[in-house]
Amino acid sequence: MGDIGGLPSVEASEVIGMDDDPGQGVRRKKDSSLVRAAEAVRDGRALAMVSAGNTGATMASALLRMGRLPGVIRPAIATPVPNLGRPWPTVLLDAGANAECTPQMLVQFAQMGAAFARKRYAVERPKVGLLSIGEEKSKGTPLVKETHALLAEGAGGRGLEFVGNVEGRDFFGLSADVIVTDGFTGNVALKTMEGSLRFLIGALTEILGRPEVKETADALYPHLLPLAATLDPDNIGGAMLLGVDGVCVISHGSSSSVAIVNAITEAHDLAVNGLVEAVADSVAQASPVTR
Amino acid sequence: MGDIGGLPSVEASEVIGMDDDPGQGVRRKKDSSLVRAAEAVRDGRALAMVSAGNTGATMASALLRMGRLPGVIRPAIATPVPNLGRPWPTVLLDAGANAECTPQMLVQFAQMGAAFARKRYAVERPKVGLLSIGEEKSKGTPLVKETHALLAEGAGGRGLEFVGNVEGRDFFGLSADVIVTDGFTGNVALKTMEGSLRFLIGALTEILGRPEVKETADALYPHLLPLAATLDPDNIGGAMLLGVDGVCVISHGSSSSVAIVNAITEAHDLAVNGLVEAVADSVAQASPVTR
Repeated sequence: MGDIGGLPSVEASEVIGMDDDPGQGVRRKKDSSLVRAAEAVRDGRALAMVSAGNTGATMASALLRMGRLPGVIRPAIATPVPNLGRPWPTVLLDAGANAECTPQMLVQFAQMGAAFARKRYAVERPKVGLLSIGEEKSKGTPLVKETHALLAEGAGGRGLEFVGNVEGRDFFGLSADVIVTDGFTGNVALKTMEGSLRFLIGALTEILGRPEVKETADALYPHLLPLAATLDPDNIGGAMLLGVDGVCVISHGSSSSVAIVNAITEAHDLAVNGLVEAVADSVAQASPVTR
Repeated sequence: MGDIGGLPSVEASEVIGMDDDPGQGVRRKKDSSLVRAAEAVRDGRALAMVSAGNTGATMASALLRMGRLPGVIRPAIATPVPNLGRPWPTVLLDAGANAECTPQMLVQFAQMGAAFARKRYAVERPKVGLLSIGEEKSKGTPLVKETHALLAEGAGGRGLEFVGNVEGRDFFGLSADVIVTDGFTGNVALKTMEGSLRFLIGALTEILGRPEVKETADALYPHLLPLAATLDPDNIGGAMLLGVDGVCVISHGSSSSVAIVNAITEAHDLAVNGLVEAVADSVAQASPVTR
């Protein structure tokens, strides 16, 4: 153990780069900070890990060193999506950990996402929606239809309220606190959302930056600040890897120092407040999925 | 044939409602305007059909009455996404006709989408991207990986340039003129996009509508108008059903009269300019997909 600015630190001589293959990186670079961080959580020398590095390698380190919680088929990435209609965001999972999913995995994502919303945002019985292309249970892929049937039968357990299928526009509405989907669709939706918002914000910034608009823009900025703060990735909080035996926050690669401080605070609070135990309980206590 | 305001019209005594089952509606309501319109195109009494009604029933009418083009596995919905970086939009397909797809279908969507971009937007050799969750060809589902391999081998034919995998944020960029995906992912992406833009526009409209901001907002509106016009569904143009033997434009259910006039003009121009023949050629001339 070293010491940096009064905080105990762990030396790590290797780096898993953003372009490194996640699996190979974790296997070969055993003295990388990602692997060392996951080991420190596993061994109880750290409460949680936070990374703004290679997402795949972060997941692989957490999975291989901390291990999965009992009964969890696959860990999933839960990402908060800003919501202006209420004080807490919509939780999207899986945001990209598993490109291919089974209905049983999606049911567990519902359970784990609900536990996260409960612990992180104090939503007592989260409303969970299943991402599809229409509200009717007949809409979607076989994966979605089968998952719908399981959740409608109560496979998600009593800790959540299944609200049925939701659509892409519901990320910003009030119909669901947690939106469940496979990691391929979830990742496409998340990047489409980011792209859409960035596109519009970019267009507005260009307009407001024109010399002839400057005076108007200056008068407008104070009114726009709260909206900008709501959309600021620094304030939204990191994504969480749920289903591993430890708290693992995945921050944006472009995170500012403010974002990292917030992510560390969030990770600390969730570790102290028993996120991992809540996720484990939600998976263990739900009706066994055998269908 | 009747006559409305100088235009010849076809009587139709039935209506397929927005909530009617598409297949049943088309089978049972043979004298509905949707079925009659598709028959008029089939019989050469109309150049094209335009509908702002039940999307499923529009597709079913077109498919059952006009029929598929030779060799087309499944028709797909091509939807234009506004792009500020160039004078033409990004074409997304399939936007929701087929929740389940094979690699062979996606290859045809690439061919048909390229033919549409060529005829509609005069993009000579459209850049076609495959929607995935990373640029590397190893990223995505088995469907995406197999489609990537086929398109990389040139299965799309010479009329397009395959630019590899693209992500959700690329809808608004310059990397692709056409973005291909299955109808489930495409529909989720489209609705997420619409939801994201509506969310931000709603938040801005609320801010600009505050009494204390009114004066500033009034000065700003003239500068915002071109952006609003770019994003206005009335101006973006309708979605097209590609792969059927006739021009079929699918307009938003909330289309204004301006949107309908634009859709009719667009449908007319595409019919006159040989869209259907171009789509048929693109599918017929490409290398046969046998893998």
